[in-house]
Amino acid sequence: MITTSTQLELFLETRQQTESICKPLSTEDYVVQPVEFVSPPKWHLGHTTWFFEEFILKNHKSNYELFDLQFAYVFNSYYESVGEKVVRTNRGNLSRPTVEKIYAYREYVTRELADFLKNNSIDEDLQKVIEIGIHHEKQHQELLLTDIKYILGNNPLLPVYDNNFKEELIEENPLKWLHTEEGVYEIGATPDADFHYDNEFGKHKVYANEFFIANKLVTNQEYIDFMEADGYENVLLWHAEAWDWITDEKINSPAYWYKFEGEWHQYTLGGFQRVNPKATLTHISYYEAYAFAQWKNLRLPTEFEWEIAQEKFNWGKRWEWTESAYLPYPNYKKDEGALGEYNGKFMVNQKVLRGGSIATAKKHTTPTYRNFFHPHLRWQFNGIRLAK
Amino acid sequence: MITTSTQLELFLETRQQTESICKPLSTEDYVVQPVEFVSPPKWHLGHTTWFFEEFILKNHKSNYELFDLQFAYVFNSYYESVGEKVVRTNRGNLSRPTVEKIYAYREYVTRELADFLKNNSIDEDLQKVIEIGIHHEKQHQELLLTDIKYILGNNPLLPVYDNNFKEELIEENPLKWLHTEEGVYEIGATPDADFHYDNEFGKHKVYANEFFIANKLVTNQEYIDFMEADGYENVLLWHAEAWDWITDEKINSPAYWYKFEGEWHQYTLGGFQRVNPKATLTHISYYEAYAFAQWKNLRLPTEFEWEIAQEKFNWGKRWEWTESAYLPYPNYKKDEGALGEYNGKFMVNQKVLRGGSIATAKKHTTPTYRNFFHPHLRWQFNGIRLAK
Amino acid sequence: MITTSTQLELFLETRQQTESICKPLSTEDYVVQPVEFVSPPKWHLGHTTWFFEEFILKNHKSNYELFDLQFAYVFNSYYESVGEKVVRTNRGNLSRPTVEKIYAYREYVTRELADFLKNNSIDEDLQKVIEIGIHHEKQHQELLLTDIKYILGNNPLLPVYDNNFKEELIEENPLKWLHTEEGVYEIGATPDADFHYDNEFGKHKVYANEFFIANKLVTNQEYIDFMEADGYENVLLWHAEAWDWITDEKINSPAYWYKFEGEWHQYTLGGFQRVNPKATLTHISYYEAYAFAQWKNLRLPTEFEWEIAQEKFNWGKRWEWTESAYLPYPNYKKDEGALGEYNGKFMVNQKVLRGGSIATAKKHTTPTYRNFFHPHLRWQFNGIRLAK
Amino acid sequence: MITTSTQLELFLETRQQTESICKPLSTEDYVVQPVEFVSPPKWHLGHTTWFFEEFILKNHKSNYELFDLQFAYVFNSYYESVGEKVVRTNRGNLSRPTVEKIYAYREYVTRELADFLKNNSIDEDLQKVIEIGIHHEKQHQELLLTDIKYILGNNPLLPVYDNNFKEELIEENPLKWLHTEEGVYEIGATPDADFHYDNEFGKHKVYANEFFIANKLVTNQEYIDFMEADGYENVLLWHAEAWDWITDEKINSPAYWYKFEGEWHQYTLGGFQRVNPKATLTHISYYEAYAFAQWKNLRLPTEFEWEIAQEKFNWGKRWEWTESAYLPYPNYKKDEGALGEYNGKFMVNQKVLRGGSIATAKKHTTPTYRNFFHPHLRWQFNGIRLAK
Repeated sequence: MITTSTQLELFLETRQQTESICKPLSTEDYVVQPVEFVSPPKWHLGHTTWFFEEFILKNHKSNYELFDLQFAYVFNSYYESVGEKVVRTNRGNLSRPTVEKIYAYREYVTRELADFLKNNSIDEDLQKVIEIGIHHEKQHQELLLTDIKYILGNNPLLPVYDNNFKEELIEENPLKWLHTEEGVYEIGATPDADFHYDNEFGKHKVYANEFFIANKLVTNQEYIDFMEADGYENVLLWHAEAWDWITDEKINSPAYWYKFEGEWHQYTLGGFQRVNPKATLTHISYYEAYAFAQWKNLRLPTEFEWEIAQEKFNWGKRWEWTESAYLPYPNYKKDEGALGEYNGKFMVNQKVLRGGSIATAKKHTTPTYRNFFHPHLRWQFNGIRLAK
Repeated sequence: MITTSTQLELFLETRQQTESICKPLSTEDYVVQPVEFVSPPKWHLGHTTWFFEEFILKNHKSNYELFDLQFAYVFNSYYESVGEKVVRTNRGNLSRPTVEKIYAYREYVTRELADFLKNNSIDEDLQKVIEIGIHHEKQHQELLLTDIKYILGNNPLLPVYDNNFKEELIEENPLKWLHTEEGVYEIGATPDADFHYDNEFGKHKVYANEFFIANKLVTNQEYIDFMEADGYENVLLWHAEAWDWITDEKINSPAYWYKFEGEWHQYTLGGFQRVNPKATLTHISYYEAYAFAQWKNLRLPTEFEWEIAQEKFNWGKRWEWTESAYLPYPNYKKDEGALGEYNGKFMVNQKVLRGGSIATAKKHTTPTYRNFFHPHLRWQFNGIRLAK
Repeated sequence: MITTSTQLELFLETRQQTESICKPLSTEDYVVQPVEFVSPPKWHLGHTTWFFEEFILKNHKSNYELFDLQFAYVFNSYYESVGEKVVRTNRGNLSRPTVEKIYAYREYVTRELADFLKNNSIDEDLQKVIEIGIHHEKQHQELLLTDIKYILGNNPLLPVYDNNFKEELIEENPLKWLHTEEGVYEIGATPDADFHYDNEFGKHKVYANEFFIANKLVTNQEYIDFMEADGYENVLLWHAEAWDWITDEKINSPAYWYKFEGEWHQYTLGGFQRVNPKATLTHISYYEAYAFAQWKNLRLPTEFEWEIAQEKFNWGKRWEWTESAYLPYPNYKKDEGALGEYNGKFMVNQKVLRGGSIATAKKHTTPTYRNFFHPHLRWQFNGIRLAK
Repeated sequence: MITTSTQLELFLETRQQTESICKPLSTEDYVVQPVEFVSPPKWHLGHTTWFFEEFILKNHKSNYELFDLQFAYVFNSYYESVGEKVVRTNRGNLSRPTVEKIYAYREYVTRELADFLKNNSIDEDLQKVIEIGIHHEKQHQELLLTDIKYILGNNPLLPVYDNNFKEELIEENPLKWLHTEEGVYEIGATPDADFHYDNEFGKHKVYANEFFIANKLVTNQEYIDFMEADGYENVLLWHAEAWDWITDEKINSPAYWYKFEGEWHQYTLGGFQRVNPKATLTHISYYEAYAFAQWKNLRLPTEFEWEIAQEKFNWGKRWEWTESAYLPYPNYKKDEGALGEYNGKFMVNQKVLRGGSIATAKKHTTPTYRNFFHPHLRWQFNGIRLAK
């Protein structure tokens, strides 16, 4: 457990960081929801704030007054067990509350929670909830950035988010296959100084066969080779559901790629630019990662292999798709009540990603952190590491 | 034909009026599109401006420079024959161009067109196109207001648009049945001092049977009687497609009505308020107007009956659904080229409304004006006048 | 009113005729429903039978026993006011009752009704219901044939229905424009020796402008000219909803046409054969008929023009699309109770067709009969007659 | 490898068994497809036959003549790499080829293949393909039976398939928790006398924690307790996607259950009957199995736990949902070419079931057989075994 003053500092820094991410936006950019899996930035701002109000201030701070009674209704998300959800009005239709009002809400809750932390002795259980609230907001920071990219990158004007934002990373090293011996290994986290989600706990043994994992991620050039070898047209490389997906959605390149004047270009948060062949591939679905590996006669690592071998290579540039389905670890126990909805209810039909990306909070870039997405999603900064 | 100076005045006044309608909005309200038939206010602002740039300035003003090359792509609407339409990016996803930029676009085009009108001798054909542009913008003013009502009235916070906006109108008069003799009557407009759309021209004779038309519109109380007599549950009153619609959409009251603490309330642009039983009913679809008339053993007038009899009663409060389908008049000729898309291509599957509403431009509140909507739509200020 | 013995004869002949239409079918052909607007032949057989049981035998024949209690549930169609409709089980999923059982049902009801007609004095009201039942079945005979064509014509094996069935009709005559003077004309039917539906009654006057109507229908060659002039690609020829329809459904030729070895072929009930350029065009939607007329700088007649002029030309080969919407005639009164659902509830969003086709009962091929379909439907034997 | 004469016997017996399953059907029952995941029985008959023609006779029997050129097009299923798939005509619309024709096709291919087996020396590779063809047909026998149940059980007449078909099985034993020690275990099959699919190979070690598994399956009464404790209304028991599914589909009991006169009844292949509280629960999705286990504070076993412990309990009544996702075993190699599509391409978004049901071929009721379905599907004879 961290001390209250450390927690206060982390809290304030996190709140600040969320707002920094939004600084380059126009008011209008906060409002739109071009596709269901993207949330409007104003919703992220309100929802992360609501979390602190709902789970901490409302019940624990004496004489706390809700900023606005209706915000619980508007900014509640997946917590089906807390009040009623916004059903008929989609997030993308909510022009009100205004962005200004939401910033006022943020400021109010930040001040109230800071005040609460300064002037009260917080017990361990509550400290844990605050900690989750902070990490919840850090997760939303990454979603904020990728959602902003989706919003701007699907606007016909392709507006720049920040000229100084550099997505491109070069794969310097030649390929090496890192070897791991067959045997029993330990997986998962134990409560320690670092923060972990419930889905990482339950440290347990797994048996791994001998395997090899690449020291580097797949580059744009390698993926272009796959495209030029008609990888998107060869049904034998794809899962059945993947094939339906690329057919229905007319997918034939990574997300944000456009062929312009005969050359591959991509939209990045730093603007529209040529694809650098030597740079690390990103914005790839699991389906594409799998098909690419099939084409290479290789495979993706499991999340266990990744965790066992991760000390031997650099990671943290791109979320790395694994072959593992997102399932509970043995003896997984979800939290009681509404916070129990955090992870467990998503443990079906999703794939685990490991490692973290340029958009990930440093505190989430750990060897045991388990990220998860549906296999067709690719608006995160995802990449491919191969195994055999 | 009007003089150029009158046209300039009308143009400037129209541009000004559009902006007045938007004055009470927050920036966020300009952006959202909660349902396909509603356009974001920013789109209305840009599209009415694009019309003047595309059809007048671009080809007729010497040395005119487009404000922004990409705006034709963003703000073109139904003019399929002019350039490419926005296909994959919906209007409701377009955070950029910003509202501020669109106001700059408006100002630029208003100034350029005013300048053009002042310093050039405009031939009659072009004058006619400018006139259409002005009336096009007046039509969008009405849509703007009803779209704003939809956006705010479907927001869970039910924000007030303007405290002074009064939608409520009282039906003062007792019902009288106004009589018209059987015979041949003339319908439609001929070119005269007033503006008319192409769909009103082709003055022609129709034969009318003897008929009676009500001197007043249906009130909220009369409609509540229908609801309380289980009008929404009696299949024999409804068209087959109407029945599917009320079943699928769970329709059981006019739009914007909510039962709150046992009383019918409604959202209005002036705020949330109790339904006044004596006031004129509004926000009713053709399907509901028809079912109500069936329940009364009466019917809706045809658009011809309405036009023949309109001198005998007051109208202009609510658009009045007629039994007539929106079809071309005999000898209807649509304009050449892109402007020909204005009316003709909508002449199928829609119903004619006559008269005008509190949101309609005075210049469109004429005995021959033909408004038209699909029979299930009810976000306009529509009402019911009965006939027999 | 006809005599009971004439009615008995007509009834038996009609029942027999329905079964003759089905004779070439395999049992499997009776079962499938490839698209919502097509009903499985077994459903037509059962539904036309249910009509007689429900509206006549059940309430009027003493000691009548229902053939099967559940058949009312299975074979009721659009009569929402009679019992519950089949909701979750689509017509195309009903393997039971078997075809054999349905034929037994037919035989039972035919015998019972014949017996009823022979041994009872039938009052005029009931006679009228029986008459409707007979004509209802005649309408279903036409649907049966066109539904069978759809079922076989959308099977990859393109099976022949009947080698002797000849759809092809040659347009022999050169084009002449038949002239009609401006004036007041009478439209609609009055009760007389012939059968009429409620939608034809209400004989009334209309005012017609001077017009010209073609003496012949459009040929395949004329339509091929339209296709070769890129008629399907020219947006200005189409209604907005038509354009969406041809785009979404990838429509670029009449229904059942296939380009095979460089030549246009078509599926007919007599087999797969080359399109004869001189033959009458068929399987065309209203949308296509309208676009074709636009391309010719001509138009479709209204249903009133058609009825006024019909004595001057031959008709009955193809249902002829008119420009008229399907609306009630002045003073239209629908029947009381469930039979009132027959016509009135469809009087929105549909277009009137006049004349009859090779599949139409002779008794329905009359100058006042009003057929109606949604504007995109084209599996009936529809054609085009032009006007100006 | 089995001898050719044993294989011939197995082949003939399998072909025969498929036809026995269909014996109680009416011709009409062979045709319909009430929902996408159910195939019409005639399609199963044709498709299993096509397999032998496509993969064996066509290329390996000298002078073999295809029964019908078009059948490859009609009866090919998921083998995207072999010819073109039926795209626009759904399986449920295919009235032709007739059932009679398909039986003739079966007879022809059965005879030809028997002849081929008798008169040729078959090499091991080809023998393996024939073996797959036989087991492919055995898998389709189970699907045939469950598809027939779906077709009849969703018909409003609820027709009996076979009065003697007994689905009901009583859970006799009291609950015991069978214990397994923590440790390394071996999983998967090695090539031996029995048939195995590619997805079972790759025998490998896994590490299991200590666990307990129930000696018996969940009964109807236990599930009724869950229903009566409002299990279907408690969001905290369900996966997020499961909650959407039960909400959208209005699921609140196992498939085929109906409350009739106050008592739970169920449709079975032996007819409509009361639910026996002591009998084994069936027709449950993974989602429901998971929610039930959550409610009990227990869990489902993994497929590895199931395989390790299976010697200690009886199984084979119901397919048992496991918590495991359907993933490739380490070193999984799919077959070359079209047969490689058999299993691998489904290894995403599905859950593993173990054990077999009353509808499963005895040869597939083995400790290593891996069945798999999407988590919402429940028309198979699925049940629940709990673990902790």
